[in-house]
Amino acid sequence: MAKGLYNVAVVGATGAVGEEMIKILEERQFPVSVFRPLASSRSAGMEVSFRGESYIVEELTHDSFEGINIAIFSAGAARSKEFAPSAVDAGAVVVDNSSAFRMDPDIPLVVPEVNRNAIERHKGIIANPNCSTIQLVTALKPLHDAARIKRIVISTYQSVSGAGKEAIDELSQQTKDMFNFQDIEPKIFPAQIAFNCIPQIDVFLEDGYTKEEAKMINETKKIMEDESIQVTATCVRVPVFYSHGESVNLEFAVPIAPDFAREILMNAPGIEVVDTPEEQKYPLATEAAGKDPVYVGRIRRDNTVKHGLNMWIVSDNIRKGAALNAIQIAEELLNL
Amino acid sequence: MAKGLYNVAVVGATGAVGEEMIKILEERQFPVSVFRPLASSRSAGMEVSFRGESYIVEELTHDSFEGINIAIFSAGAARSKEFAPSAVDAGAVVVDNSSAFRMDPDIPLVVPEVNRNAIERHKGIIANPNCSTIQLVTALKPLHDAARIKRIVISTYQSVSGAGKEAIDELSQQTKDMFNFQDIEPKIFPAQIAFNCIPQIDVFLEDGYTKEEAKMINETKKIMEDESIQVTATCVRVPVFYSHGESVNLEFAVPIAPDFAREILMNAPGIEVVDTPEEQKYPLATEAAGKDPVYVGRIRRDNTVKHGLNMWIVSDNIRKGAALNAIQIAEELLNL
Repeated sequence: MAKGLYNVAVVGATGAVGEEMIKILEERQFPVSVFRPLASSRSAGMEVSFRGESYIVEELTHDSFEGINIAIFSAGAARSKEFAPSAVDAGAVVVDNSSAFRMDPDIPLVVPEVNRNAIERHKGIIANPNCSTIQLVTALKPLHDAARIKRIVISTYQSVSGAGKEAIDELSQQTKDMFNFQDIEPKIFPAQIAFNCIPQIDVFLEDGYTKEEAKMINETKKIMEDESIQVTATCVRVPVFYSHGESVNLEFAVPIAPDFAREILMNAPGIEVVDTPEEQKYPLATEAAGKDPVYVGRIRRDNTVKHGLNMWIVSDNIRKGAALNAIQIAEELLNL
Repeated sequence: MAKGLYNVAVVGATGAVGEEMIKILEERQFPVSVFRPLASSRSAGMEVSFRGESYIVEELTHDSFEGINIAIFSAGAARSKEFAPSAVDAGAVVVDNSSAFRMDPDIPLVVPEVNRNAIERHKGIIANPNCSTIQLVTALKPLHDAARIKRIVISTYQSVSGAGKEAIDELSQQTKDMFNFQDIEPKIFPAQIAFNCIPQIDVFLEDGYTKEEAKMINETKKIMEDESIQVTATCVRVPVFYSHGESVNLEFAVPIAPDFAREILMNAPGIEVVDTPEEQKYPLATEAAGKDPVYVGRIRRDNTVKHGLNMWIVSDNIRKGAALNAIQIAEELLNL
């Protein structure tokens, strides 16, 4: 794209991720000329603030994208499938945060720190990966480059904000209800989330894995551009508001000492190493919330395989896991 | 021991586990003649109830065990080390819930469903394993017998009750403080536990693992009586009151289909299989709390190794993970 100012639409502007996208466009001084917040009819008419000005959210239609250069979608896969082609037809480049196009071989799936070059191949749509995948590959790519990862075993500790604003309210309300001895009725989550862990995120597939687990497995290989990496995952929802945690067990092709892994990660983009157990310092959801980096800690040798490491990865799922990564992709577009 | 009635001391009678032990002695109609609740001077003088009668908690001293047949300790490793020998000298058999003697090669470490025969070798003390280990080996032993486990990768989701009553209060108080916009000051836990996950349980060792992780690794091999099993673990505290969750990745020596694993577990002692994803049924901390079984679900094939399975194991850490297992050991003593 030519340098200058851009007309930017945010689809799903009133959602948890949409709001964060607007905040990040502002924070990072994205060169916006026209700003157009869009949402479904349910939220159209609401107001959002951008650079100190108030904007009325317009209803998303096929005609919403006239004159738009960049359309950032975060309104669910169904809406992306229906409306992203209209945005492309109108001449916009779409950065899509839904799962709609992620595994389409013709559509780049991008984490700029990992595979920024894939953006060049776009044909109008660039997919933003799943939150739990983004933080994983950001941390693992530099280690893969150094010692080739053969196998990854992941268990996640995922916050409720990944399921949207109503999910945040549900954890909050259920927690209050528990203290007031009220009955708990799960609506967003399949079971009580207050003071509980739910080993189900998204729906179950035929093979017994959830769709969230399948996303982590498939998206990781696509973004790392290496189908030979073996990935297995168990995704668990925990009663945390913001930031996902990941317990990651890695098997490498060649030796890699914890100190060397730490050094690599300290010099890698988008990563902050928090790993001084002697001071009880390691990544925490509460400390990652609202921040940009992917935090990595608890890096230690796993002697149960030939070249093994364990680690603990935490990042704000709404920022790097969604909104920030999408805006970073948009920033890369400016350099094409 | 001869059949009949037994004089039973509970050391740490006012703690979270001690209270549950007394409840379980009652529930399972353990043949108690004299009942003697003991605790440190701080808690001596408090009252506990057993079979509808009130008992004054006596101060634990070296002379506390006169006439006692079975002394069940749950008052921390330091007190066990100091006072268990006095109990043995007084003629009692000690069932010790602390870590004091677990890895002593002369002291049996027992989960009755797994290695009840080890009890016969006792020389006065029998150790009760760590909570997270008990539920793990209860679920894994029948699978190990069927297809030999080569390697285990565990990530835990451990409730605060494992750290005692004050830890339960801390989660409760911090949660309330958050809703009232009060500052949070961690006391029991090394960081805020309300709406957070802490990847540290117990202290750190030189190799970067925590003592809790080392316990899981070492105790699992000892109880399963197989040093060849490779075990690695990441232990995480989560904001849940009761029951530990465990995401477990297994590699077997020979093929084992998920259906076969399910069948084996359905017929194994102490286990309940909750594994119907099509109905969104899987083990949950809230549903395991206060119950006896070890719940196993999310059993599925892991194709990233030759003979792999993933599963999710949940059990009440205060019951099967501590008090119930200790009383089960005491019950086995009656049959010697």
